[in-house]
Amino acid sequence: MSERIKGVMAAGLTAFNDDLSIDVQGTIAHTQWLLANGCDGVLIFGTTGEANSLSLAERMAFLDALGASGLPKDRLMIGTGCCSVPDSVELTSKTLEIGIESALMLPPFYYKNPSDDGLYAHFARVLEKVADPKLKLYLYHFPQMSAVPFSHELIGRFLADFPGVFCGVKDSSGDFENMKAMAAKFPGFDVFAGTERYLLDTLKAGGVGTITATGNCTSAMCGAVYAAWKAGAPDAERLQEELTAQRLALQNFPAAAALKELLARESGRPSWRNVRAPFLPLAAERAEQLVADMKKVDFRLPAIAA
Amino acid sequence: MSERIKGVMAAGLTAFNDDLSIDVQGTIAHTQWLLANGCDGVLIFGTTGEANSLSLAERMAFLDALGASGLPKDRLMIGTGCCSVPDSVELTSKTLEIGIESALMLPPFYYKNPSDDGLYAHFARVLEKVADPKLKLYLYHFPQMSAVPFSHELIGRFLADFPGVFCGVKDSSGDFENMKAMAAKFPGFDVFAGTERYLLDTLKAGGVGTITATGNCTSAMCGAVYAAWKAGAPDAERLQEELTAQRLALQNFPAAAALKELLARESGRPSWRNVRAPFLPLAAERAEQLVADMKKVDFRLPAIAA
Repeated sequence: MSERIKGVMAAGLTAFNDDLSIDVQGTIAHTQWLLANGCDGVLIFGTTGEANSLSLAERMAFLDALGASGLPKDRLMIGTGCCSVPDSVELTSKTLEIGIESALMLPPFYYKNPSDDGLYAHFARVLEKVADPKLKLYLYHFPQMSAVPFSHELIGRFLADFPGVFCGVKDSSGDFENMKAMAAKFPGFDVFAGTERYLLDTLKAGGVGTITATGNCTSAMCGAVYAAWKAGAPDAERLQEELTAQRLALQNFPAAAALKELLARESGRPSWRNVRAPFLPLAAERAEQLVADMKKVDFRLPAIAA
Repeated sequence: MSERIKGVMAAGLTAFNDDLSIDVQGTIAHTQWLLANGCDGVLIFGTTGEANSLSLAERMAFLDALGASGLPKDRLMIGTGCCSVPDSVELTSKTLEIGIESALMLPPFYYKNPSDDGLYAHFARVLEKVADPKLKLYLYHFPQMSAVPFSHELIGRFLADFPGVFCGVKDSSGDFENMKAMAAKFPGFDVFAGTERYLLDTLKAGGVGTITATGNCTSAMCGAVYAAWKAGAPDAERLQEELTAQRLALQNFPAAAALKELLARESGRPSWRNVRAPFLPLAAERAEQLVADMKKVDFRLPAIAA
């Protein structure tokens, strides 16, 4: 069993070729770049990675490539939660098969207003079928997107009934009070803020870090905040303020398209702008606005190797 | 090319074995029973058919069995809309391959608040890949479940840009004003009410019928209303009132579980109660309440062959 990932994680982008097939090498190279520039870990197949615009077959094939890529398995987490039990089982089992132990799971997100008993049954069934004690399961709490939240009561039941399996949560609700409450209520359950805006606040509240979409571009600054906090350095607050300003500027734009626009410019690779429907690339004038806005907050990307 | 399906359609249930695998023969027999008891057509893989709790592989395998089943292809419609373009293409192509031309498509339902341009791009891409002029595409408008509605502007664009492809809509919003408005605004675009409560009202407003979850149990009465309306019979209103009372009684309960409870009792097959998470079977006291409530509205199921 590997150590749990803690600290700064980007919810990594998926790069697409011009025919919108996955650019496997481009995605792996970007993941490596994130790990070299402030990220302790990278989440593959999150919301911003456009996971739900990929077929199951594409995700399975990419995981095989990832397993063979030489990237450090203990610094990767895979989004494996689908609407159906069998698809969730297949992705989670593949994740473990390639040597990655951390899986982030959405609730089954089509059927709305499920009961806690129904959600419990879904996860219990997935765990029964995956049947691998190495699994580190993280809950993906993102009510604005999944429209199916996790209640504290349900989390409590999971922790009581499956000790050691439910390791933490990515809370993308934007509700810091919820992050703080979970960190206080569930010791040993690792709370990741879904936005780097609350990185320092979450660490102070007993959480373990952030898993963030905009971390695809702010990872270096996220890493600086995390390092300052770990060292007890006095400039942690000031660095967080700079980071917050960058996050707030970025979140005025649709995440995947904006982040890909910035990477396309820095890398000189226009194919970075490719997104899958229902996402669309930024229109030219919005792209100019983004660049102007980011300049105002002193934003700079680390160099990207050709 | 077959004729378009019009009139009464049930959103057919999927029967499960005790290990929660699809009961293929049970599901096909139920479909046949619906067609013999008031249904002009049956939708397979709708919300109540628990389609989104099935894996893509299970849906593909079931379609092969359906194609070989001898059921009348021109009276079947298949739910083929997934979150991703490639999965939607695979299911839609399989539907056409087995000789069924009508496909009901959800919007990509994970990413919320997509732009009309983004939804347009999704469907345009699916159509480009399916590339079969036989396809009859129906939109599945169900904001409470998909959380991604179809705007009238977008429907207008689809009709203008893909003549003959977008054949109609299942409007499960429960908002009769929307059904009426679409029937008035888009001639030749077949509006199906998502509830038999509005069957007669929809027909009078220029719509073509209903595709309804509770039709799994009310199909005979739905058929009676439709026949009376077609014949211009004076008792159409009275029959609709009876039907509405049955629908209103049923919709106090979670649809799939309640319908399966009634079928389990009538057929004597307890396995009808099997549902997949996040759905759960009705608790015993709720089941008794359901039976009592249905008795009050003179509800009776047609006989089910052993």
